[in-house]
Amino acid sequence: MASVRSLYAPDEKVAGNALHTNFDVDYVIDYRFATTGKEQAEAQFTKLIEALNNVGLVTEVRAGDNIGLLIFVKIASDRHLKGEVYRSRVQDWLYGVRTNAPEKDMQQALGSEPVTEAERLRLIYLLITKPTNEGGAGITPRSGEWKGVQSIFALHDHKFNKAWIKHLSTRYLLDAKDLSEIKDRFGEKIGFYFTFLQSYFMFLVFPAAFGFSSWVLLGQYSPIYAIVNCLWCVIFIEYWKKQQTDLSVEWGVRGVSKITQKRPNFKHETIIKDPITGEDIRVYSPMKRLSRQLLQIPFALAASLVLGSLIATCFAIEIFISEVYDGPFKSYLVFLPTIILTTVMPTLSAVLTGFATRLTDLENYETNDAYEAAMVLKIFVLNFITSYIPLFLTAFVYVPFAQIIVPHLDILQLTVKPFAENEKQMTSPKAGFQINPDRLKKQVIYFTVTAQIVGFALEVIMPYMKRKVFRKVKEVQADRAAKYGGGPAPAAVDDHPEEAAFLVRVRNEAELDIYDVTTDFREMVVQFGYLSLFSVVWPLTGLSFLINNWIELRGDALKIALETQRPVPWRADSIGPWVDALGFLAWLGSLTSAALVFLFSGDGLGPDGTPSDIKAWGLLLTMFFSEHIYLAVQLAVRKALSQLDSPGLQKERAERFAVRRFLNPCDITPQYNADETRQFLQESMGEEAAEKAVRGGIQAGEKISRSTLEEEARNSTLRGHGTPEERFWNRQQGQAESIAVGLKMIAKAAPTETKKQQ
Amino acid sequence: MASVRSLYAPDEKVAGNALHTNFDVDYVIDYRFATTGKEQAEAQFTKLIEALNNVGLVTEVRAGDNIGLLIFVKIASDRHLKGEVYRSRVQDWLYGVRTNAPEKDMQQALGSEPVTEAERLRLIYLLITKPTNEGGAGITPRSGEWKGVQSIFALHDHKFNKAWIKHLSTRYLLDAKDLSEIKDRFGEKIGFYFTFLQSYFMFLVFPAAFGFSSWVLLGQYSPIYAIVNCLWCVIFIEYWKKQQTDLSVEWGVRGVSKITQKRPNFKHETIIKDPITGEDIRVYSPMKRLSRQLLQIPFALAASLVLGSLIATCFAIEIFISEVYDGPFKSYLVFLPTIILTTVMPTLSAVLTGFATRLTDLENYETNDAYEAAMVLKIFVLNFITSYIPLFLTAFVYVPFAQIIVPHLDILQLTVKPFAENEKQMTSPKAGFQINPDRLKKQVIYFTVTAQIVGFALEVIMPYMKRKVFRKVKEVQADRAAKYGGGPAPAAVDDHPEEAAFLVRVRNEAELDIYDVTTDFREMVVQFGYLSLFSVVWPLTGLSFLINNWIELRGDALKIALETQRPVPWRADSIGPWVDALGFLAWLGSLTSAALVFLFSGDGLGPDGTPSDIKAWGLLLTMFFSEHIYLAVQLAVRKALSQLDSPGLQKERAERFAVRRFLNPCDITPQYNADETRQFLQESMGEEAAEKAVRGGIQAGEKISRSTLEEEARNSTLRGHGTPEERFWNRQQGQAESIAVGLKMIAKAAPTETKKQQ
Repeated sequence: MASVRSLYAPDEKVAGNALHTNFDVDYVIDYRFATTGKEQAEAQFTKLIEALNNVGLVTEVRAGDNIGLLIFVKIASDRHLKGEVYRSRVQDWLYGVRTNAPEKDMQQALGSEPVTEAERLRLIYLLITKPTNEGGAGITPRSGEWKGVQSIFALHDHKFNKAWIKHLSTRYLLDAKDLSEIKDRFGEKIGFYFTFLQSYFMFLVFPAAFGFSSWVLLGQYSPIYAIVNCLWCVIFIEYWKKQQTDLSVEWGVRGVSKITQKRPNFKHETIIKDPITGEDIRVYSPMKRLSRQLLQIPFALAASLVLGSLIATCFAIEIFISEVYDGPFKSYLVFLPTIILTTVMPTLSAVLTGFATRLTDLENYETNDAYEAAMVLKIFVLNFITSYIPLFLTAFVYVPFAQIIVPHLDILQLTVKPFAENEKQMTSPKAGFQINPDRLKKQVIYFTVTAQIVGFALEVIMPYMKRKVFRKVKEVQADRAAKYGGGPAPAAVDDHPEEAAFLVRVRNEAELDIYDVTTDFREMVVQFGYLSLFSVVWPLTGLSFLINNWIELRGDALKIALETQRPVPWRADSIGPWVDALGFLAWLGSLTSAALVFLFSGDGLGPDGTPSDIKAWGLLLTMFFSEHIYLAVQLAVRKALSQLDSPGLQKERAERFAVRRFLNPCDITPQYNADETRQFLQESMGEEAAEKAVRGGIQAGEKISRSTLEEEARNSTLRGHGTPEERFWNRQQGQAESIAVGLKMIAKAAPTETKKQQ
Repeated sequence: MASVRSLYAPDEKVAGNALHTNFDVDYVIDYRFATTGKEQAEAQFTKLIEALNNVGLVTEVRAGDNIGLLIFVKIASDRHLKGEVYRSRVQDWLYGVRTNAPEKDMQQALGSEPVTEAERLRLIYLLITKPTNEGGAGITPRSGEWKGVQSIFALHDHKFNKAWIKHLSTRYLLDAKDLSEIKDRFGEKIGFYFTFLQSYFMFLVFPAAFGFSSWVLLGQYSPIYAIVNCLWCVIFIEYWKKQQTDLSVEWGVRGVSKITQKRPNFKHETIIKDPITGEDIRVYSPMKRLSRQLLQIPFALAASLVLGSLIATCFAIEIFISEVYDGPFKSYLVFLPTIILTTVMPTLSAVLTGFATRLTDLENYETNDAYEAAMVLKIFVLNFITSYIPLFLTAFVYVPFAQIIVPHLDILQLTVKPFAENEKQMTSPKAGFQINPDRLKKQVIYFTVTAQIVGFALEVIMPYMKRKVFRKVKEVQADRAAKYGGGPAPAAVDDHPEEAAFLVRVRNEAELDIYDVTTDFREMVVQFGYLSLFSVVWPLTGLSFLINNWIELRGDALKIALETQRPVPWRADSIGPWVDALGFLAWLGSLTSAALVFLFSGDGLGPDGTPSDIKAWGLLLTMFFSEHIYLAVQLAVRKALSQLDSPGLQKERAERFAVRRFLNPCDITPQYNADETRQFLQESMGEEAAEKAVRGGIQAGEKISRSTLEEEARNSTLRGHGTPEERFWNRQQGQAESIAVGLKMIAKAAPTETKKQQ
């Protein structure tokens, strides 16, 4: 608890009780116009507010930091929200995500299945971002005409977060309740991440224990450990596959990945009318996409070449210095390669990631999911190279071929020339030199312990520091501004006292990064890779990961709660492409483990250092068998698990059954009959109106919502400025006022800007 | 045409115009009581007739051959059939096989989607065989209490068959129309078989052409051919996977495999109440089943051991005689092993198949599909051993190790001792002997040409002969019986003249075998195996198969039309487990082809016959790369194909769209709401009745149907014995008469029987 409070301390100092209310705000839009001219900024702002109001959202505008506005958004009327919820649930049912339709009566339906916070926030976010033709406001942060929109984020529920962090930090394990709570708050996607992390953690108990005992009893490179480890990998992955299907059923999101959001940046070549449905389809030739996807191959090769050669060189230098060179400064020079790597690698991989993104954009996917999947693949490739190549080099190049290679390393003399006193120090001893058997183990330990800790520090502690420093700076600036009135007055000055603390907090949250769950997934997958590929070198790997992941889980929670904006609660029905990545690593593990055991078992020395002594056919045969046994076992495990029943599947069956049991031809009423529906609509609202309503009924919804809004406003004023929330939302009545106020603020902030521009 | 007529000739001679009407018969039940006592026979017969009538079927009884009755069945009323059709379609929709529900009004629904013959026959067959608690008559041929029921078969539509055979035999290719016609007649399962055969045939054009040219230009063991061949395999399989999903959508059977029929022979351990639904579930512990499934492994091993050793011995003997022995009768003795194989192998594999069946029974599957899949797997294993092991032995044992093995073959001397004049003839030459390089090629040619032709002969021509002979014998017997009155008088004597010819024909069809599509699938899959595994030895393989399959397709059609009972038109949404078998063979092909090329390329002689010269690591490396390149390519092809759109998927999208387009929350009426429905039913027909109706409404349906039947009967009599069909169905009015007539016949036939029994 203490720790938690201290974490919150900085906020609390500033915000006081501001942490305890969100003024009913659903989303905050951080609109900036530092780089756009005044007129443009005004025009765009007006457009923005109108767009929001058109889809039945209420807006309040407040000043933001560094030349921006904060637009507070909440859904106009409860009724409108319910409509959205109901529509989405019906859609789920049509896509087969739900087995039975929501009840006829909307009120009743929402009564029986209350709206979770995640559902509410997801739908409102969609309302803001969906393209207009699908009934959304079509606002896409940082892209297209909405460049000005820096971010769209919901406000943290700090009361919950605090309790949550405390809860996590005081318990050893998360139970189902905790996980479904996470899901209800942050959406299924993040829910799945935590569930995965949790069951991965649970599974790690075995390799930790077994690894430890085999480290004590069997030592390294034990074939028994290798076999058990591979088996464990298979079981874990297959089990998880089963569990995630289960979970998706229990959470009612099975097959939700079929409901795809169109990518706003998708560029279509032609619009064709669907022959059957007459629907307009925006098409992009798949062949063209395919041909572009093929670019991934050269990309992957180039990336491996670049990164690989970098790693190889540093590696060679290191060996040269540590094994050959014996002049002065040796103890410092050995760090040379590490320095090179740590400086060059990040930039290099950043560049490559940029490339990957460009490539994925080029592939021009139609849906967000397809885009993400493609991106994940590339990221995985890059990570694979950077994470595992060093170990592959040591294990399969350095150790077997050192004898041959080392003598040629003399070319690297120039790296140490300035320091060496004479030639001798820089030439490899003629006498057959001894390879360093511990090098591989040392490396593995580095990657599985040191690197993990460093990673955690960078991930959680760094941003926390950054944030503190950043805020301090801001305060100082504010003070100076207040004193000497130089530069734009800080936004805070004309805040309404009742909101001041709250707004400070919001401005701070606006500065936070956006949480991206894929990075966390990547981290875990890469970690799993070390376990499956190289843990035979150092059986304690599992133990180290077990400890690390206990902290990791809490760390991630902390990150979400404090260091990033509140994530949009997306849904998902699995951990997506990551499970394939895991499968790939486990499968590759069956090859590497076999090879490592064959090469190094007995003394960790490998085949007496001379490649000629390696029985190549023996090595290959071992790998060959290991791989195919692996595949067979995998098949068997899959089959076995598929036979076992599971709560999820039971639930699904039960629902199906509930349907079939009462099935009788005489009273089947088709749940929708295209023609009937249209007829009904046309009768009730006339031709075009019908078309509109059919398209999602937003234009219809709009009038409702706005009128409701104004009504509500009036009521609250009549009630004489009820709660602080009501007052907050009534400072600006209707969109007209919001716009007016906003424009004033722009006018106030922009000029200093336009001056700069001149 | 001529050929077709001649094929029909025997029937036509006997039956005349009997081929042109089926007297509206839906199914014929061949009931035999040769081995049961009189009383029992009578009791069971009565039960049978009643059971049939209870589910709304009309029955007519006629005498059958060798102490049996023919029970003609047709559905009582059109209305009843429609009910069944509608119910099944609604079920399809609930299972997501149809995307949109059948129309509210039944008449309209059936109007818009007329009932195909396959659908009609399938539903009536289900009505006869479904367990009673699912609203069927629960009649299970040749098992349980219905041992007496020899077979349940529909009558061939000879008019159609004749036209069909003619059509096929006069065209080079089947187009989509032909295939969907097959599907409408014989059901989707057989439809899929013919479609698969067709597209396999089409695909074979390439390996035929390429194989021929590479046979001319590159010779055998060409790496280029091997690569192209593997690539072809991948593309073919992946393409077919896509095509079959497509087809299943176009045929409206996608996901139909989810609708499973319970196996009547399924033995449950316990009945538990489903916690959620309160439904009785008959459970069999999956762990127990799993443990029994594990028996497959020893089974597979034992089978390979037995068959393998048999093959190996014969193989060794052959080599010994052909390569070592040079005494008298050599030219005859070389056939010794072939004789042993052809005599022992069939019996052996029959025994093993029996074992497999027993094993599968033991595994005690709940549904027919699961049972079939498990059986297919075992059958595939057996076939794999018998079909490919000889070639594996030659390629990977004989050729490389002949030098080592052959000298030890002297132990086989005893096989030829009786013939040899002296020891010398039976001892292998001390001088290193030369292996016979053409052996492998000869074998491949045998399996891919000779064996195929033999197979075809056994499959199509043999049964035809058998049938002719069988009929002749019967006629002779009949004549003798007529002359000397010995033995039971043939059933024919008291046939009504109007039906006589028809009944003769039905009795003949009753004697035919039951068509099993899996055997045909097996044949094709094994054939594909030769192509993927060994065609690199003899590139003309493809060509040979191309020719063979053109005939094969027609042959199978002929078999269905003439040599087997009309198959029950089952549905299916794919070719089921066979596609996995294909995948496995293609994958294995990537290994064998690589190995063969490595071992034999250059001279077809292999590595100079001495294994020591084989670069084992080279061989392994080749295989290793070949396999992994194969897997990578497979992944790529799959990905590529998945991007391409297809008519089937378009159709599905269109249907979904038709639903979503008219979606509007305000007028979603849930298509079924358990409670509402129940309420409705209870109000309308009271508690139990509701329960009944809910269970499928058969008991309700029964009354309707029987009354309708009698009414129809009356009408037709009033109309003065209208058509021959009407007269046929009015010989026995209502079930009472059928039973009476039947009992009389039993009484007439049985005594001679009961005497025998004493």
